[in-house]
Amino acid sequence: MQMNPRLSGLRCLRCEALLPPADYPEGCPHCLAAGHPASLECHYDAAPGDAMELPVWQPVTLGEGATPCLEADALAKTEGVGQLWLKCESANPTGSHKDRMAAQLVSRARLAGAQRVAAASSGNAGVSLAAYCAAAGLRADIAITRNCPPLQREAMQRFGAHLTAFDDSLARWPHVADLCRNQGAFAGTNYLNPPVGTHPYGVEGYKPIAQEILDACGLPTDIVVPTARGDLLWGILLGWQHLLRAGRIPRLPRLHAVEPYARLARARSAGDARGLWEGSTDQYSIAGGTVTLQALEALRRSGGSPVDVSDAAAAQAQQRLERMGMATELSSAAALAAVTRLRRAGQLDAESSVVLIHTSDGRRG
Amino acid sequence: MQMNPRLSGLRCLRCEALLPPADYPEGCPHCLAAGHPASLECHYDAAPGDAMELPVWQPVTLGEGATPCLEADALAKTEGVGQLWLKCESANPTGSHKDRMAAQLVSRARLAGAQRVAAASSGNAGVSLAAYCAAAGLRADIAITRNCPPLQREAMQRFGAHLTAFDDSLARWPHVADLCRNQGAFAGTNYLNPPVGTHPYGVEGYKPIAQEILDACGLPTDIVVPTARGDLLWGILLGWQHLLRAGRIPRLPRLHAVEPYARLARARSAGDARGLWEGSTDQYSIAGGTVTLQALEALRRSGGSPVDVSDAAAAQAQQRLERMGMATELSSAAALAAVTRLRRAGQLDAESSVVLIHTSDGRRG
Repeated sequence: MQMNPRLSGLRCLRCEALLPPADYPEGCPHCLAAGHPASLECHYDAAPGDAMELPVWQPVTLGEGATPCLEADALAKTEGVGQLWLKCESANPTGSHKDRMAAQLVSRARLAGAQRVAAASSGNAGVSLAAYCAAAGLRADIAITRNCPPLQREAMQRFGAHLTAFDDSLARWPHVADLCRNQGAFAGTNYLNPPVGTHPYGVEGYKPIAQEILDACGLPTDIVVPTARGDLLWGILLGWQHLLRAGRIPRLPRLHAVEPYARLARARSAGDARGLWEGSTDQYSIAGGTVTLQALEALRRSGGSPVDVSDAAAAQAQQRLERMGMATELSSAAALAAVTRLRRAGQLDAESSVVLIHTSDGRRG
Repeated sequence: MQMNPRLSGLRCLRCEALLPPADYPEGCPHCLAAGHPASLECHYDAAPGDAMELPVWQPVTLGEGATPCLEADALAKTEGVGQLWLKCESANPTGSHKDRMAAQLVSRARLAGAQRVAAASSGNAGVSLAAYCAAAGLRADIAITRNCPPLQREAMQRFGAHLTAFDDSLARWPHVADLCRNQGAFAGTNYLNPPVGTHPYGVEGYKPIAQEILDACGLPTDIVVPTARGDLLWGILLGWQHLLRAGRIPRLPRLHAVEPYARLARARSAGDARGLWEGSTDQYSIAGGTVTLQALEALRRSGGSPVDVSDAAAAQAQQRLERMGMATELSSAAALAAVTRLRRAGQLDAESSVVLIHTSDGRRG
């Protein structure tokens, strides 16, 4: 395990400042000081045609990545699109895409000399970080909400994580901030409000999804991504951006962000990612009233749209997928419901080739 | 989806009769009539150096197979063996190795014109068959026990399976026999007592595990397999046998069968697989008082041994694996405890290269 020596710097996606390689759990320090939390994008000293780079070489692994991409002809036909695939991130070791992030982030934490990783999560991220910390021999401190599903809580504890429960979601962040700023913990999730993306080295872990989709399906026209703070959306964009710069593809696919209710559309209209848009939803993994600049930026660069999907529509899509033999968490099924909406809105048509990111099977829901 | 035209026949592993390709859910009819249920082994018209054949081409798929093989250096050191890997079958779509079997078996059921598949399972097999039947558009009739874990039951129901509950495990088999013999159902599991292996076309689905291990680890000396009726053990042996005949390997690895208490050792001593060896265990997926001829035959051909692992030893191994970030069902963790036993018994040593089959992560336990 070692840092990639070709990692040459990090660029702010807002002010474009170039910073030396280091840990920036709060994103760009200049933009943070200006009151605009903004994510950073890794840069590498590499020839344009080179393979996709990641921050840590030989990271701690539990077998993440290289997930199946299932072609779903029957769904494509019903939805009236040309082709439709499901990228099954549920096949990752702890059952969600988060394992890709955790492998890079926890490895970096160990290389940086940290003894512990602190995170705010009552779901997939917490379980994943707990597992990878166990694999790396680091302590995991996870701030959960009191309504954390019992199976998620139990999974974290079985991996040896130390849990602290809070009444509400936002209350966890100051606790994690204290652990990271004052007690030597490495940040495993955002802890700012308004939020910034997860540590850029962790988010880089999502880039290979783009390569795997290209290998399995060719270049799709559209990718539909369940989205909370936008780490996954942004990380997938970074992967396609690499492929574009490497000359492997002639254009970016459009990335669409699936939400339980309109947040990104309102942030985009307001021209400001820093609002709080409260709303209740059963789509647990993409709940919460905040958005991030990186999510807006991924939509802007790729030309995609936010799509809000009601719990009822998500539940109906979930049942459709189950009756095809696929278990999905509600927010993952929402991606299928989003295809229906995008098709009706004329944003998808019979020529579209669409990939849904099946983030998790909801095994601990 | 079509039958492999090179599938030329099935040979009884006991009397060596060669039968034409067809469905033999009760194994060799001659041996059954003689009171000795025996599995059949598929034969193909193919040159020895050819790729591994399977009965159904382009089967129904949910993305099964190509699972990760994790190298566990720290465990190898602690156990005093040369190398140790975990073959993570938990990465399959419904969370266990059973998906490999279900893909072939359910596809064959559809090609054979069946409308429904009947099976006796309160665990991984039932969930897997329910999912693949949903994917194939077939009805699944699953006979469960009343103590079936609620999450397993719920998963089967979500995939649309029809469940019937029985007081004890053996009581399910006559029900499934009736569905298969008199009501046109295709057999998804054994229903005989004494039992025979699952439909040979289904068991063939496990063969690629051997190829994947060879690709990832080279040829190991030993493979440790949690075992109930021995489908997985036998299927993995068939895969290695193919590789041996194809000249790809110079010898078979030894396959060891992990049990919750001594059944196979007693059957082997008795020279008869047909006994009933009752015993209680929490190792749910490998419980039950019966063994099969195919399990004994896999041990005999490969030179491996049965290893019984107590629930306490399995639980200790389970916790060791959890503290390394890996969730396993109890019977899967028993494979690690079996390594300790085999090492102490001198059957493994510092030169051994060992693969544990991590059958499932127990996500619905």
